[in-house]
Parts: sequence; structure tokens; C-alpha cells
Amino acid sequence: MPPEAAAYTALESRFRRLNALREAAGVLHWDMSTLMPRGGAEARTEQLAALQVTCHELLTGAETAEHFAAAETEARVPGALDPWRRANLREMRREWRHATALEADLVEALAKATMRCEMIWREARPAADFATVRPALQQVLDLTRRAAEAKGEALGLAPYDALLDAYQPGVSGARVAEVFADYAAFLPDFLEAVRTRQAARPAPLRPEGPFSAAAQEALGRRLMEVVGFDFGHGRLDVSIHPFCGGVPDDVRITTRYDEADFASALMAVLHETGHAMYERGLPADWRLQPVGQARGMAVHESQSLLVEMQACRSAAFIGFLAPLAAEAFGGAGPNWGPDNLLALATRVEPGFVRVDADEVTYPAHVILRTRLEQALLAGDLALAELPGAWNDGMKALLGIVPPDDRLGCLQDIHWYDGAWGYFPTYTLGAMTAAQLYAAALAAVPEIPDALGRGDFAPLMAWLRAQVHAKGSLLSAEALVQEATGKPLDPEVFKEHLRARYLGE
Amino acid sequence: MPPEAAAYTALESRFRRLNALREAAGVLHWDMSTLMPRGGAEARTEQLAALQVTCHELLTGAETAEHFAAAETEARVPGALDPWRRANLREMRREWRHATALEADLVEALAKATMRCEMIWREARPAADFATVRPALQQVLDLTRRAAEAKGEALGLAPYDALLDAYQPGVSGARVAEVFADYAAFLPDFLEAVRTRQAARPAPLRPEGPFSAAAQEALGRRLMEVVGFDFGHGRLDVSIHPFCGGVPDDVRITTRYDEADFASALMAVLHETGHAMYERGLPADWRLQPVGQARGMAVHESQSLLVEMQACRSAAFIGFLAPLAAEAFGGAGPNWGPDNLLALATRVEPGFVRVDADEVTYPAHVILRTRLEQALLAGDLALAELPGAWNDGMKALLGIVPPDDRLGCLQDIHWYDGAWGYFPTYTLGAMTAAQLYAAALAAVPEIPDALGRGDFAPLMAWLRAQVHAKGSLLSAEALVQEATGKPLDPEVFKEHLRARYLGE
Repeated sequence: MPPEAAAYTALESRFRRLNALREAAGVLHWDMSTLMPRGGAEARTEQLAALQVTCHELLTGAETAEHFAAAETEARVPGALDPWRRANLREMRREWRHATALEADLVEALAKATMRCEMIWREARPAADFATVRPALQQVLDLTRRAAEAKGEALGLAPYDALLDAYQPGVSGARVAEVFADYAAFLPDFLEAVRTRQAARPAPLRPEGPFSAAAQEALGRRLMEVVGFDFGHGRLDVSIHPFCGGVPDDVRITTRYDEADFASALMAVLHETGHAMYERGLPADWRLQPVGQARGMAVHESQSLLVEMQACRSAAFIGFLAPLAAEAFGGAGPNWGPDNLLALATRVEPGFVRVDADEVTYPAHVILRTRLEQALLAGDLALAELPGAWNDGMKALLGIVPPDDRLGCLQDIHWYDGAWGYFPTYTLGAMTAAQLYAAALAAVPEIPDALGRGDFAPLMAWLRAQVHAKGSLLSAEALVQEATGKPLDPEVFKEHLRARYLGE
Repeated sequence: MPPEAAAYTALESRFRRLNALREAAGVLHWDMSTLMPRGGAEARTEQLAALQVTCHELLTGAETAEHFAAAETEARVPGALDPWRRANLREMRREWRHATALEADLVEALAKATMRCEMIWREARPAADFATVRPALQQVLDLTRRAAEAKGEALGLAPYDALLDAYQPGVSGARVAEVFADYAAFLPDFLEAVRTRQAARPAPLRPEGPFSAAAQEALGRRLMEVVGFDFGHGRLDVSIHPFCGGVPDDVRITTRYDEADFASALMAVLHETGHAMYERGLPADWRLQPVGQARGMAVHESQSLLVEMQACRSAAFIGFLAPLAAEAFGGAGPNWGPDNLLALATRVEPGFVRVDADEVTYPAHVILRTRLEQALLAGDLALAELPGAWNDGMKALLGIVPPDDRLGCLQDIHWYDGAWGYFPTYTLGAMTAAQLYAAALAAVPEIPDALGRGDFAPLMAWLRAQVHAKGSLLSAEALVQEATGKPLDPEVFKEHLRARYLGE
């Protein structure tokens, strides 16, 4: 670094420590979800709170503000910062503006309200009792609205866009609404056509269990290695909800085993392995800097869905998988044939639960939540009306009505723990995955054949170069543009669905 | 708190955060030793370093110094601080003086030198190659000597006492030398008598393995619960060296399994359970305050040795254990009888390796190391002469000479990773254990009968009240005095040995 970049360098060193502390928190979160005995919860909460306060102080301290002011001046000197450093400064500033946008009392009130609301929700959900959690959720909603306005003002964005920006920088609520309206218009006829086509064929046969957790785990580990996961830099464990945690050099994914159905755990493993490959592939030179982090949650989800939905539910890969699965569980006969397993892996069926949804109906779940959260935040919908609005939306989008709120507006943790503006990233991720995969196939035509042999190297090499190794150097939009030759285009996702589900 | 204790209260809040961050580091250390893939080491080192720097800054910042100055004034107001707060302030100040005694450059140089030395030692030990690690150890020794002098000056202690104080506050090198000289004088004739008595009896029979790790673990868990371990607040896992980690509400102990010998892992589990019971029993009201922490490493070791050596190697407990062990491993016949298992559990045999030593010869290992580290620090012994001095010491104390330095001065990590002044706590702990156990038996005579039924409640109730729940309220000396009616008296340990090994 030239001496004139002293403030920038001071910021790098501050963010290095900040991100190392966040990594520490990440490992503690992983532990909490996998191994921690129940009795450790209170102490763990205190440890995580101490880390959070420390990180917040590091980020919002007076010294940091001075460094930013000086670094802006430094950056104006031509050639003072190379593109990576320039992008790093941009990402540091973005984080800093998010952190400083909220008064300390609002941050604290939000933290307390979401913690309280989440606790009540954990009881209310199994009891299908929305009324009990509504007052706590109202508090969260009111505070989130205040936060969205404050952040919007600080960032020069509409309030909802400011929430989105925390999860996927650069995406706007208007663009989301446009993309989702298009899909909502496309879905009814398409779904009808898929179901008609499915009905005309013999129903796929379910392999008969039980499938021991040990055999499922062994097969999962084998397939993780097939995808490229390095167990010298990561782990596979069990948690109630599958997730990808840890840190880039020690990525820890989880799944949970259902002894009656091996496909669910296996597909979760492959999904999380997609997340893990992204983390592992981030630019090592920028590991603890903002520019070295993943490019937002939609891009992250694109990497998990690309592996799970695009690659691992393809005919080529299922052809590779079928004999391995039969061997792993001692299965034989037509239930274990690749055509049957492919039909199971690509079965479309509207259901109440988002996390169990197929890729055709999944966006409907996300569209519903996005519309509802926008209406709630804008004050156009009262919480008292949420259950009814939810059920109306399900009826309109998928033609089904949940029997109770457990299978309706209580099913997801997100609103209750304060993650407003998060839902759209799932479907933006699915669309990004389809577009990246299509570009990968165009650039490297041997990818499907390789997948058929269990060889992910050609696909991963392309993803490493086009996505993983770029960290947050580019905006998500520019990343997609550079990798695929055009901005995010929802048509590509629809083309993928037509090809896979209608054979068009 | 009265308003006049504002500075004290500010210190409490600072130490609360400090100790929450240290707890976070504790969990990360546990993870590193049990589950972490090799490839995670570098990132973990960075996380731990970030936590360490943050803690050091919290402790040594200018604001902390101001709070201490003001708190001293506050504490002079009669009744301003109750005994717990008064003791807490004393312990906070002790920590603070240790932390501020060393210049930042010395702290950094020591951290680097010990990390480097430990890495070289890891290669040098299996190769029995002391010469390779000597230059790195010389650096550690030189820096440790400087640190001991600086701390001694700041704390008003002799340099070696300042090192001891970091592990067991209040103990002096002179007192250690006196106690150890007494034991060294006692040992030769006693050892001779024990070996003569052993030789006059039939040699105990070893139960024949293999003993599956799963069966060992199941038995270990069962016995942990017998001692009083609550798996809702802790775990048992595997690591290369057994240890007790985690935090008081989530205590995590480890062991390692040898399928040829179940006793080694089992006794390690019982030993670590003793540590765990101490952590669990610390005063919950003072959990993240210095006064709520364990009263030094010698007292900690007294709790593990009390459970392992005093309680679990007693005839009463072995009578309870023998049928359980036979059942766990499907054993039968005379090898599994309680008399035979007791003879095995109390076998005395001089050996080269400290961690494998019986309780009679263990102090000799500690005495040797203590004498050598004092001589090295004082400049009375050069590192080049250490292997010879080690071997001479083993010959003089136990009559055996190690065949190489792997079984000699390279065997322990302590000096190489900078833990000078730590060794004495093992034997002080053994002596404290004997004295506490004798006092417990005098106060609660039904303890042995209860142990014979697998009932630890009477013993644990006494330890809870007399030791665990006191945290660091008292000095170690006062703790022992209050619990046993007299200060630490090495005669009690010798009485225990005479009773157990000579039947006197």
C-alpha cells in the first residue's frame, strides 16, 4: 500500500478483526444448532451478544468514521486503490452505513423484540395459534418499519429496498414485484400442463425403507465428495433444519435423516454442498475482507440450487446416482431404476409447506410472502388480517387452502425473528441458478456427460471462475451479466421449467 | 448498587463482557481439539487471536484504569461493597495487574515464540530430538524470564512467584519448595515399602480385551451420571488428550479410547468429571465475574483428583464399579472381581511418563519439573544441560533413567507452549484433594457407604458447599482452612498414601 492509503489500510485491519469475530460467532451458531446441550443456551446467548456488541462498536466507533472520511480522499488519487481495494472500500462503506443508520436504542429494541417474538412463535406454531404471537409480531413489525425508514433515509433507498439491500445488495422491490408478477401470471397454465402430463404417466414408485441414518450419511458423504467437498476443510452433521455454517476454510453443513425417505436428507446435503462450494471458492486473498465475502443471499442460494436443482435433479446425474443409492440401501428392482428416481426427483405437487415444495411451485410460496410483507410494512394489511390474506393468496396462487395457521402464516421463522426482506432471495436465487447453469452448459458442453459419470470438475471450474472467486468484487447484476452475457432474465428459468417438466 | 459504587458497577459490566468473550474462545478451543477439520486451523487461529486482542484491550484500556482508581475510593466507604463484591474487585484488580504488567511488545513476542516453539516441539518429540527445539525453547525461556521479572515487579512478588500466581494465586515458590522437599524425602522408603508389599502378593490380572470404544463410552456416560454430571449441561467427546472445556452451563469433557485397556479412558472420564462438577457448581450469581471463577488450577486439580483418586479408586467405589464393568464388556471370572480391579487401580510402579503415573510416583515427576524450571529461570541451569539434569533427577527420585528425551524432557508440552509455573499445581492439587476428602469423610461419615452404592450425593453436597459454590470468594489458603480446619498440610496426603498402599 502506498502511504497515501493509510486510512484505507486501517479500515482493512479493522474489518479483518471484525470478520474474524463474526467467524467466531458463526462457529458458535453452528455449535448451538448441532451439538450444544439445551442447558447451554443462556450462556451461549450471552457469548453471542458480547460478540455482537463488540462488532457493532468496532463498526460504528468514531475512529471508523474518521478512517472512512480520510479513505474517501485517498481513493480519489488516481491509481491509489486497485479494483479489488476499491470494491472493498465500497462494501465496507455499505456495511458501515447499514450499521450507523440505526440509533442504538432501536437496534436494542429490535434485538429484544425479535428474541421475544421468536420464543413465543416456537410455542405458537405447533399449537397453530397465531393470536398468541400476534402482539409480539406487531412489535417486531413496528420496529422493522422504523428501521426500514431510517435505513432507507441513510442509504437513499425506499424503505423496503433498504431491507432487501441487507440480504441482496442492489435489488429493488420494484424489480422484485415485476419479476414475481410475471411468474405468477405464468404459473397457473404451466402448472396445469405439468400436472396433466404427470397424470398421463404411471405414478413413480417409492423405494421402500427403512433407510438407516448411517447408510444415508455414508451416501451423503460420498456424494459430497463427488461434488467436490473436501472433508479436510469441513464437516457434515445433524441439525433440525439443514444449513451451511462455519467459515470458508471449515465449512460445516448439516442435514436431518428421515428413515422412511432417503431423498429428502440427500437432496438437502447436495443443496448445502452447493452453498459450501461457494464459501470454499471465495477469494482466499480477501478472506476476512468485505470484498471477499459471498455476493448476497440470492447469489448464495443460486449456488445451492444450481447444484441441487439444476445439476443433481438432472437425468444425467440421476443416472449416476441410481445404482449408488440402490447399493447403499441394498435396493433392487424397478423402484430403484434411474427413470423412476428421476420422476420422483422432479415430481410437481402443490403443497402448503415452502420448504417441502418442488421448484415449480416454490416461487408461489415466495411470491405470497413477499406480497404480504410488503403490504404489512406499507400499512396496507393489518396483522389481524394476515391469516386470511395468506389463505386467499394460497388459493389464488396454488389453488389450495391450508387447514390451519401452522401450515399457513406460522410455518416460517423469518418474520418472527426479524428477517423481513429475505424471502425474495430464494426465488431470485432459483432464477439466477437457471441462468448461470444455462450459460455454463453453453460454455462447457461436456458438463452433462461429466455429471453422468459423477464428475463435477467441469461445472465447478466454471463456477469457480465465474462466480466463487469473484467474491463481492462486482454487484450481483454485473456478476450475472459477466457470467451469462445478460442481466438476470426470468425467461431462462421458465425455459428450464418447460424443458424439464414439459419436455419442450 | 448504591450510586457511590458506579465505578465498581462499570467494572462488573466490563468483566461480564470480557468473560463472555473468553467463554466464546473456550468453546472455540474445545471445538478445535475435538471436531475441527485440519484445514480449519489457520482461520481458527485468527478467530482466537482476534478474541484475545479484543479481551486484552478491554482489560488494559485507559477507561479500565480510571474505573479501578475510582472503585478503590468507592470501596473505602464502609458498607459500599459486600464481601462478594469486595472479593470481586480484588480478583478484577489481580487480573488487571497481570495484564498491564507486560509491555505489548513482550506479550506479542511471547505469543509468537511459544507458537513457534510448540510447532517445532510437535516434530521434535516423536523424533526424540531435543537439539532441534532447543533454540526455540531458549527464546521462550528468555522471554518468560523477562515476563516473570516484569510481573514480579508489578505484583510485588519474586519472579517465579509471579508466574505461579497466574495459575494458583497466593502460592509461593518457597512454600512449594518446602512441601516438595518433604515429599522427596518421604518417597524412597515409602516406595520401597509399597513395592515390597506388592511383590509379596499375587500380581493382579488384566481383564482381556478388546473393549469396544462404544462400550467404553456407554460405561463412561453411565458413571458420569453416577457422579452427578448432567448431560443437559454438558457433553462427552473424544480428543487426543483428555480435558475439561466449555463453560459452566455447558461443560464439555473429553477422553480417548484404547481398545486394549478400558481403565485408562474410564479413569480419565472420572477425572474430567471431577473438573466438570467444580465448573457446574460455581456460584451462578457470579457466573461471568472473576469472583465466580474457579479458585486457581491447584484447587481445580483437587476436584478432579478427589473424584478420580480419592473416591473412584477407593475399595467402596470399585466394589460398585466391578459388576458394572463386567456387564459392560461381557467379562466374567476372577479378572473382573472387585479385589482384582482394586489392585489394578492402585498399582504402584515407577515409570518415565508423568501422565501415566500412579498417585505415589506422580509427585516425583512434578517435583523434578518444578526444580528444573526454577533452575532454568534463575539461570542456574543451561538448556544444553537439561536432558542430563532430567535423567539425573529421574534416577535420584525414582531410580530409573529414560532411554531417550521423548520419554524425558520432551514429553510434556508445558514449557514449550509457555506454561512455566504450572507444574506445581498438579501436586498441590493432589495434596489438597487428600485433605478435602479426609475432611469430607470426617464431616459426613456415610460417604464411603454411599460410594459403594454408586451414590455421590453426600460427597458432592459437601464439595458444593465447601468448595464449588465459593468460587474465588476466598484465597485458596482460606478456602482449605475453612473447609478442613487447617491450612494445606502435606501430612494428610502421606497419611492417605500410607493407609491405601501400606494398610496403615
